[in-house]
Amino acid sequence: MPKIITIAREYGSGGRLIAQKVAEKLQLVYYDNEVIDLAAKELGFDIDTIRKAAEEKSSSFMYTMSSSAFTLPLNDQVFTTQSKIIRHLAKHDSCIIVNGCADYVLEDYDDVLTVFIHAPLESRIKRVKDEYKENHDDIKRFVMKKDKGRSNYYNYYTTKKWGQLKNFDLTINSDLGIDEAADIIVKLFQKGNF
Amino acid sequence: MPKIITIAREYGSGGRLIAQKVAEKLQLVYYDNEVIDLAAKELGFDIDTIRKAAEEKSSSFMYTMSSSAFTLPLNDQVFTTQSKIIRHLAKHDSCIIVNGCADYVLEDYDDVLTVFIHAPLESRIKRVKDEYKENHDDIKRFVMKKDKGRSNYYNYYTTKKWGQLKNFDLTINSDLGIDEAADIIVKLFQKGNF
Repeated sequence: MPKIITIAREYGSGGRLIAQKVAEKLQLVYYDNEVIDLAAKELGFDIDTIRKAAEEKSSSFMYTMSSSAFTLPLNDQVFTTQSKIIRHLAKHDSCIIVNGCADYVLEDYDDVLTVFIHAPLESRIKRVKDEYKENHDDIKRFVMKKDKGRSNYYNYYTTKKWGQLKNFDLTINSDLGIDEAADIIVKLFQKGNF
Repeated sequence: MPKIITIAREYGSGGRLIAQKVAEKLQLVYYDNEVIDLAAKELGFDIDTIRKAAEEKSSSFMYTMSSSAFTLPLNDQVFTTQSKIIRHLAKHDSCIIVNGCADYVLEDYDDVLTVFIHAPLESRIKRVKDEYKENHDDIKRFVMKKDKGRSNYYNYYTTKKWGQLKNFDLTINSDLGIDEAADIIVKLFQKGNF
C-alpha cells in the first residue's frame, strides 16, 4: 500500500521547502498544486505522465524558493477534478502532496500522515521578502491575504475548518528550523505508525 | 537562562506520560498541576521545597498512569496564584510544566517550547479504560466532559482559545507513538531553536 504525506501550510512558512527536503530524503514523488492542476487540465489520469511531470518539475525547482503565480481558483469543477487527481495519485505512489485540502480529500484513506506547517507572521513576512523576493507596498497585507485565500478555499470546499490541529497528526512552527521540521517528518514516516 | 517545555493535552492522550519520558531523558524537573497546586496552597514560593516535592512525586509516580483526582478549580484567585507559581518555577529551573494554561502564562518568556498532545477520541477512550482504569457507565461522555472542562478553563482565564495550533510550536497526535512523540520533543529541546 502506498504511504502518503500531506502538507498544508501557511503562506511564507517554508512548508514547500520542508516538503521538498522530505521528498528528497525519502525518495518520494513530490506533487504540488501546479502538478495537480496540470494533471487536472492537460495530463488527465495517466499516472506515468503525471509522475514524469512531477519529477521534471522537482529536479528543476528543487531548492528554488519560487512561490509561483499559482493561486487557487474557487470553482466547484476545479475542486472536484483536483480532488479526483489527488485520490488517483495517492492510490499509485507513496508520495508527498503539498496541497491545502489533501488532508480532507484523503480523509478515508489509510496510511496518510497529515502535516501542517506554520510560523509567526513576522517570520513569514521576512521569508516572503528575503527568499521569495516578493515586492509589495504592504507586504503584511499581502501575506495575510494569501492566508485568507487558503482558509476561505478550505472552509468553502470541505466540511472542516482550516488550520484546526485535530485535522493533523503533526503541526510544526517552522521557526524551530526547516531541517528540524523535515527530519521529524522523515522519522515519523519511516516509523510508519499512521 | 532556564529553558522550559510546556505541555498541554487532551484528556487520555497520554500527554502526561510523554512529558515524564521527556523529563527523564533530559533530566528536567517535572512540574504538573498537583505540584503547582501544592505550591500554591502550602509550599509558597520557596523554590527548593517545591523542587524537592516535584522530584519526590516524579520518582514515586513515574510511569504510573494515575490520572489523579485533580480537577481544575474555576476560581480567579486560584488561577492567579497558579500563574504566579508557574512564572516563578520557569525563572529558576529548566523544566517541563504539564499544565493547560502554561503556554499562555509564559507567553512573554523567551526559551519556551510549547507543545500540545492530542489523539482521536476512540484512542483516548481506550487509554482511559485500559491504562487509567477509569470505570464509568458512559466513558465517552466522561472523556468529553474532561475535555470540556480544560477548554472552558483556558477560554475563561486566558485571552486565547483552547487547542489552537498557532498557540503551539508543536502539536502531535499521540497515536503516532508515545516514544516517538517524546523523542521529537527531546530533539527539539536539545536543538534549542525556540
